Amino acid sequence: MGHQIQIEKSITTSLTSFLEVNKYSQLIVLVDENTKRYCYPLVKATLPKHTLIQIKSGEEQKHLETCMMIWQKMTDVQLDRKALLINLGGGVIGDMGGFCAATYKRGIDFIQMPTTLLSQVDASVGGKLGIDFQGLKNHIGVFQNPKAVLIATDFLQTLLYAEVRSGFAEVIKHCLIADSQMWDEIRRKDLEEQSWNELVRHSVKVKETIVEQDPTEKGLRKILNFGHTIGHAVESYFLEKPKRKLLHGEAIAIGMIAEAYLSYKRKLLSEESLMQIEEFIFSIYGKVDIQETDMETIAPLALQDKKNAGGKIQCVLLKAIGEPIIDQAISLKDIKDGLKYYQK
Amino acid sequence: MGHQIQIEKSITTSLTSFLEVNKYSQLIVLVDENTKRYCYPLVKATLPKHTLIQIKSGEEQKHLETCMMIWQKMTDVQLDRKALLINLGGGVIGDMGGFCAATYKRGIDFIQMPTTLLSQVDASVGGKLGIDFQGLKNHIGVFQNPKAVLIATDFLQTLLYAEVRSGFAEVIKHCLIADSQMWDEIRRKDLEEQSWNELVRHSVKVKETIVEQDPTEKGLRKILNFGHTIGHAVESYFLEKPKRKLLHGEAIAIGMIAEAYLSYKRKLLSEESLMQIEEFIFSIYGKVDIQETDMETIAPLALQDKKNAGGKIQCVLLKAIGEPIIDQAISLKDIKDGLKYYQK
Repeated sequence: MGHQIQIEKSITTSLTSFLEVNKYSQLIVLVDENTKRYCYPLVKATLPKHTLIQIKSGEEQKHLETCMMIWQKMTDVQLDRKALLINLGGGVIGDMGGFCAATYKRGIDFIQMPTTLLSQVDASVGGKLGIDFQGLKNHIGVFQNPKAVLIATDFLQTLLYAEVRSGFAEVIKHCLIADSQMWDEIRRKDLEEQSWNELVRHSVKVKETIVEQDPTEKGLRKILNFGHTIGHAVESYFLEKPKRKLLHGEAIAIGMIAEAYLSYKRKLLSEESLMQIEEFIFSIYGKVDIQETDMETIAPLALQDKKNAGGKIQCVLLKAIGEPIIDQAISLKDIKDGLKYYQK
Repeated sequence: MGHQIQIEKSITTSLTSFLEVNKYSQLIVLVDENTKRYCYPLVKATLPKHTLIQIKSGEEQKHLETCMMIWQKMTDVQLDRKALLINLGGGVIGDMGGFCAATYKRGIDFIQMPTTLLSQVDASVGGKLGIDFQGLKNHIGVFQNPKAVLIATDFLQTLLYAEVRSGFAEVIKHCLIADSQMWDEIRRKDLEEQSWNELVRHSVKVKETIVEQDPTEKGLRKILNFGHTIGHAVESYFLEKPKRKLLHGEAIAIGMIAEAYLSYKRKLLSEESLMQIEEFIFSIYGKVDIQETDMETIAPLALQDKKNAGGKIQCVLLKAIGEPIIDQAISLKDIKDGLKYYQK
C-alpha cells in the first residue's frame, strides 16, 4: 500500500493538495486537549467541514476503552468507509487513532499529522498501530500504513523541553543503529543546539529505509528495537507508578545504556564506544533512580516483548556504533546486570 | 498473502502436514461448548501439545469483552508471535478468533477449521474478520487471510437441521449471483436431497474466485452482499429480540426475497425469476412474521451498512439469475416495500 511522507515547515499546502486528490465522504480529526489548543488552530482553516473527536492526552489513555469511545463517535456521525481520519497529535493519537481507523468497518483511510518530535521521527513512520493491554505496551494492534504522513516541523515549537528530549532518544537510536557519522555530529552538541529540521529528515529517512525492506518485522526491522527491550520493560514498570512518571524516550535512554553495556560485556562493542554512548546520554537525560528491588520487577516484564520467540528474550545489541545485530538472546540476569551498570 | 483452502471428508491429514511444514512455537485451539463436545474429539489426537481456549457459543458473544478474555488467555500463556491459533467452530469463532489473532502483538498466524455449513461456504473464505459493536454486525474488524482453511465435511454431521438450513442460504446466494445452472439444480431438490460435498466445493469456488479479484471490496466483491443489505438489518433487529431468534441464513433468506422484489420492481429482474426465487426460498424457510411496526425499526438499521457511501444505502440487485449489479441506491421506503412484499 503506497503512502507518502511529507516534511515541511508548515503542512497546509500538502494537506490541501492531498484532500484535493483524494475525495472523502467525511473528515474526522482526532485531537487531545493539548493538540486541540496548540496545533489544531494551525490547520483548522485549511480543513473543509469536519468532525472533531477529542480524547484525553497521555499514554494511560491508550487502551480499549478510549477506542470504544472513538468507534462510538465514528458510528454516531454515521461515518462510512470512504471517510478519512486525521490523527493530529503525538504517538498515542497516531497509534490509537490509526488502530481505530484500521478496524472501523474493517478499515478506513487515515493520515498521520505527528505533532511531537517523538512521533515525527518514530511513531508516524512504519505502519505500527496499536494500544496497550493490561499494562503491556502496544499489545493489541495491526500493521497498516497511513495514506500519508504530513510532518510540520512548526509543531515542534509547541512542545515542552521534556517532550523534545524524549523524542531525541529515537534520534540518538537511529544514529546508533545506522549512521556513525551523524552520531559524531549530534554527540558534540547540546540539546538546544541540534538542527531539528535536518534531524527529523534524517530520522525519517533511516526508519523508512529499514521499514521498506521489512515491513512486518521478520528480520532487519528489529534493529529499530535497540534500547527498547529493556527500555520498554522500564517504561511499563513506571507506567504503573503514577508518582514516578517517565516519558518513552527517557525509558529508551536507560535501555540504550543498559543494552550498550550488554554489547560491551559480550565483547561486541568497544569500551570506548560504550563510554561515548553513556556519557552523551547521561549528559542529556541525567540518571533515573532505579533500586535493585525495582529491577526484580522490571526484568520479567521483558518476557512479554513482542520480539521474543520460543520463550527467549530477544534483544538488539551493537557490534559497533552504526552496526546492530538482532536476535541476541538475553536472560533476566542480563537485564538486571544492564540496569545495575546504568545505576552504578 | 498466500493461503490454501482444503476440502476433505476428514482434515486430519491436511492438518498434520500443515503443522509439519509450518513450525510454530505454540498452538492454541479456540472452541465453544458445542465444538468442544462434537468437533474437538475428531481432531484432538492429530494435534501436538496445545492450549484450549473455550468461549460461549452464539452471535451474542461476538463482542469486545470476549476478545479481551481471549487476548488475556493468550497473554497468560505468554504466546509469542510465532504461535498459531486454530479456530475450530462456526462463523463467530472464525471471525472473532481471526480478529484476535490478527491484532495480538500486531498479528499472529491463524487457521480456520469451519465446523458449520455457513462458515464452510461463507465465513471461512475471504479474510473478513471482526466483531459486533453496539448491535452492529462486524462493525469492528480487519481484512486478513488465514494461513490455511481446512474444511472437513465430516463436521456437517454434527449439525442441527436449522443450522444446515441457515448455511444453505449462502449456497442459494452463490447460485443467484454467479451460477444459474447450479441454481436450476438446487431448486429442484429438497434440503435433505442436496449433495453437500459438491455444494461446499461449489460455494467455496464461487466465493474464492470473486474475492481473489477484489480482496478489499472496492467493487466486484460487493456482489456477495446480495440479500445482505436488508438481511443484515433484519438480523440486527432480531438480535435485540432474544425471544424471536433468527439465524443468519434465515435473515438472509428474507433479504434475498426482498431484494429480488426490488430488482423486479425496477424492471431489472423478470417476474418469472422472482417467482422462482420466492417459491424455492419460502419452501425451505417458511415465512417469518414481520409486522409493519417492526419494519419501521428495521429499515433505518440498513443505514449503518458498511457498503454504504455518501449517506446512501447501497444494495446489490439482480438483472437475471446469475447476473448481479452493485451500488444500487435504495431508500428506506424501498426496504419497507421489499419487506411488505415478503410479508404479503
